[in-house]
Amino acid sequence: MSKKILVVGGVAGGASAAARARRIDESAEIIMFERGPHVSFSNCSLPFHLSGIVEDSEDLVLVCPETFKNKYNIEARTRNEVTGVNREEKKVTVKNLETGEEYEEDYDKLILSPGASAICANIEGAQNENVFTLRNVQDIREMDSYIEENNVENIAVVGGGYIGVEVAENLHLDGKNVSLVEAQDQIMNPFDYDMAQLIHKEVMDKGINLILSETVEKVTEDSVVLSSGEEVEAEAVVMAIGVCPETELAEDAGLELGETGSIKVNHNYQTSDDDIYAVGDAIETYHQLTNETIRLPLAGPAQRQARAAADHIYGKSHNNNGVIGSSVVQAFDLSAAATGLNEKQAKEAGIPHDIVYTIPMDKVGLMPDSNPMHFKLVYEDPTGRILGAQAIGKGNVDKRIDVIASMISMDATLEDLKELELCYAPMFGTPKDVINQTALVGLNLLNGVFEQVPVTKVRELVENDACIIDVREEDEFANGHLKNAVNIPLSELRDRVDEIPEDEPVYLHCRSGQRSYNAIMALQDMGYDNLYNVSGSFLGVCCYEYFQDQLTGREKIVTEYNFN
Amino acid sequence: MSKKILVVGGVAGGASAAARARRIDESAEIIMFERGPHVSFSNCSLPFHLSGIVEDSEDLVLVCPETFKNKYNIEARTRNEVTGVNREEKKVTVKNLETGEEYEEDYDKLILSPGASAICANIEGAQNENVFTLRNVQDIREMDSYIEENNVENIAVVGGGYIGVEVAENLHLDGKNVSLVEAQDQIMNPFDYDMAQLIHKEVMDKGINLILSETVEKVTEDSVVLSSGEEVEAEAVVMAIGVCPETELAEDAGLELGETGSIKVNHNYQTSDDDIYAVGDAIETYHQLTNETIRLPLAGPAQRQARAAADHIYGKSHNNNGVIGSSVVQAFDLSAAATGLNEKQAKEAGIPHDIVYTIPMDKVGLMPDSNPMHFKLVYEDPTGRILGAQAIGKGNVDKRIDVIASMISMDATLEDLKELELCYAPMFGTPKDVINQTALVGLNLLNGVFEQVPVTKVRELVENDACIIDVREEDEFANGHLKNAVNIPLSELRDRVDEIPEDEPVYLHCRSGQRSYNAIMALQDMGYDNLYNVSGSFLGVCCYEYFQDQLTGREKIVTEYNFN
Repeated sequence: MSKKILVVGGVAGGASAAARARRIDESAEIIMFERGPHVSFSNCSLPFHLSGIVEDSEDLVLVCPETFKNKYNIEARTRNEVTGVNREEKKVTVKNLETGEEYEEDYDKLILSPGASAICANIEGAQNENVFTLRNVQDIREMDSYIEENNVENIAVVGGGYIGVEVAENLHLDGKNVSLVEAQDQIMNPFDYDMAQLIHKEVMDKGINLILSETVEKVTEDSVVLSSGEEVEAEAVVMAIGVCPETELAEDAGLELGETGSIKVNHNYQTSDDDIYAVGDAIETYHQLTNETIRLPLAGPAQRQARAAADHIYGKSHNNNGVIGSSVVQAFDLSAAATGLNEKQAKEAGIPHDIVYTIPMDKVGLMPDSNPMHFKLVYEDPTGRILGAQAIGKGNVDKRIDVIASMISMDATLEDLKELELCYAPMFGTPKDVINQTALVGLNLLNGVFEQVPVTKVRELVENDACIIDVREEDEFANGHLKNAVNIPLSELRDRVDEIPEDEPVYLHCRSGQRSYNAIMALQDMGYDNLYNVSGSFLGVCCYEYFQDQLTGREKIVTEYNFN
Repeated sequence: MSKKILVVGGVAGGASAAARARRIDESAEIIMFERGPHVSFSNCSLPFHLSGIVEDSEDLVLVCPETFKNKYNIEARTRNEVTGVNREEKKVTVKNLETGEEYEEDYDKLILSPGASAICANIEGAQNENVFTLRNVQDIREMDSYIEENNVENIAVVGGGYIGVEVAENLHLDGKNVSLVEAQDQIMNPFDYDMAQLIHKEVMDKGINLILSETVEKVTEDSVVLSSGEEVEAEAVVMAIGVCPETELAEDAGLELGETGSIKVNHNYQTSDDDIYAVGDAIETYHQLTNETIRLPLAGPAQRQARAAADHIYGKSHNNNGVIGSSVVQAFDLSAAATGLNEKQAKEAGIPHDIVYTIPMDKVGLMPDSNPMHFKLVYEDPTGRILGAQAIGKGNVDKRIDVIASMISMDATLEDLKELELCYAPMFGTPKDVINQTALVGLNLLNGVFEQVPVTKVRELVENDACIIDVREEDEFANGHLKNAVNIPLSELRDRVDEIPEDEPVYLHCRSGQRSYNAIMALQDMGYDNLYNVSGSFLGVCCYEYFQDQLTGREKIVTEYNFN
């Protein structure tokens, strides 16, 4: 007898599961329920409609119900909401939102892919017509029309995650004045505080009014009022403060939720009821590196889960490796990508670790558009196992992060990264790639070849008048340097050794850390043993300090910033 | 007592080895001999001077001898050629090419990094002043001046490897009429014949006169004469037919050469004399996948070898994993990258294997500049171990190939690729990346879920009037299709099953192979068992056929080409 499979939710997870089930079983009856008006739309592309990069919002809908029917023999019932599950009788109750009619549909297997809904802050004015969240094509159309019809000039985006940043950028590209309000002291949580400063700088430099460490307390018709009391002009507000898994249906059906409040599933994406699977943003998953249960509402994992669930229905097994969390975002001219654990997460997970921060060129310096890439690698101490990485720059950061994600999935170490044979031509990279270089620095740290201090400590060093030696050449020093640094160019180092004190810690840096590493190796061989390389060096310090300096007007620790 | 290290050759390998030795040992005496006028230039960037992408040829020189001296305390003696090695006395004989003076220099350790010289065909006219090879900055300057001073309009580039293609492109960008002559039936040897057709098409479409399966027999002052007798206009000729390892010094010193004729080295890059190391283009290396000894004259491996050799001098050990051969080239609007074994090499190596050819989009179709990426994966049968991949397209092929190179280095299988969690945003990729998709197809093939025929067999099928079913929609079919294909759109498949014969092999295709895969899954479940998916589908066939059709004027097997 042929199987009857019902799918709740028709976007990434649901549509993938339905299509996969059809490919395995031509005779199955497959019905997909979606309470919204569209199935299978590109939710990750929604923000790009605001700038017109995706001009026609119709294009956001990838597959329509008719196509599901005639190409895949899958019935996609839009505007049909599954309101209840009768597990004993293996039936769902469905409400047709167009007609109001309620009906039942029985199932052999049920796949839940209800997704997650955007959280709207519980504050005064949150229900105003000028407040928007972003979950589907309908939402983006409404937001777009409202902005146009009301000649909205000033918009506040609340929440600095991926969606918030993309919405802010696309609104800015559309010519709006955008304020981006974030409750934490940084946007883009997958990045550590130090790396986030690069994004802060870019967002601010491009003209976004970036407001950190503030919440929105109230929305009026032409402003948002912040926790500080400050009022920010905004005729429209976009709430992008996070998503909440849609668990109501599962909860009502008595399915077990996990510790994160999402639907709990086993290895095969079965819920506590063997005939009910759940996939996508509404479930919790397992972190490959921390062994912790987490929520990871991303499209890639959702699609893999969907396939695995459909496969399991038909007895096909699946390697469930857990997730590591790989992501990328474009923020104006910068791209920022991350995978695995950042420093903050490694610390929280109690994994002994160290970090490397390098700023190599992303391609041969002679080539047009070669740019520095800020690269931060987190590895386990003492094994050298790769835990995560963050890369930010104008170039192809996603390439390097995809390599790291791949290597993490294979339990690779610094030694493995060092030996990677990546494809090279001057337009694409350097013979010793960003990744190879970073791994070499990591191995040196792991082996105690030299010691480092992070950019986050440099202000303190400057303020305490520590001995800082800048080994760049004189002309570079003249263009901006740390306020109390002494300039001993690497090219003069061997003649001026006697200027370097032996009885106190000495902190060395250059532009990106490579020349100072050379200097340290030379000095150590001469008997110095209290030397530290400033990780990220002058370029890293400038990038780290700039935004906070601008924001607070505090005293700079550099004479001039230099970002090249 | 401090060590004295001599290095022969001052480019990639030599300069890296010297610098690494200095970092390890401040007290070593390090002298680097280079018979040319420059050390440490970017040889991979040389072709880009012809188009002016690298405007000033001075920029090609990365580090000058003065900098080696004052920053690294390394003596770089340019225009000094090491002419002999006295291994008993551990001395080299050096000729100062400026003064003619000969002198000796003793060593504790000697590192040979002599590189490889460009081969110049032994034909009439090969020594003419209008014939050039490309090895160093001097060469590119001479070529560039000659072209300018003689108002050269027509140039023949002989040899269609990386250098030949880059030189041809850069000369074309500079407004020259370029003929590219290749003795084999394809250019770009790292790619299989089928994939090479994409590059052939691009090179031809952009206006290069591409001549395959012909050798140059004679060079005159304004032409090259081909083996066919045809004369091709060319006031200048660039020979890029390959490189030959510089082994003379090593041979004269009685050092062992290997089976490839290059210098033989052990795990630690020691030659048959423990005190003499060799690295770079002059040595032979070990292929990680075939276990064979090969030559691989690439910059990345050279730098790793150099570091390993210097490390070993100081007792530091090194994981020598062998090489896999990762490379990338830009050919006009296309980028082409490859790693590991191609199909041809896997066959030669006698490794049971199969291939997957997919053409997914490189980013979400809605995004500007999203393009199809032609991706060919070679895997071992029956283990599913990844052996190699080739990617060609307008987008970031290097990203995907770097991931595959990484996964090969970790002995990954199709199952590992399928599960890769790569970073996704619509501007950067798709939720199920090119790599995930390709791995899924590979797993289906490995598991016998469906069978395929390669694009290379389609002409034969068409000519033999095989049953070919095109499951694209009617409007797509109307824009060009295989001449004897029957159009049964996937959307009508289930109603028109009776049109599909059960008693003969049926070949299905769509645009890129995904819909026809869906059709095959449905039909198999209905009882059909003699179905084949056309790997690469219509798009793949068009790309494969186009160039040969144009070249030979043979009858097309398609009504119209379609490359979208």
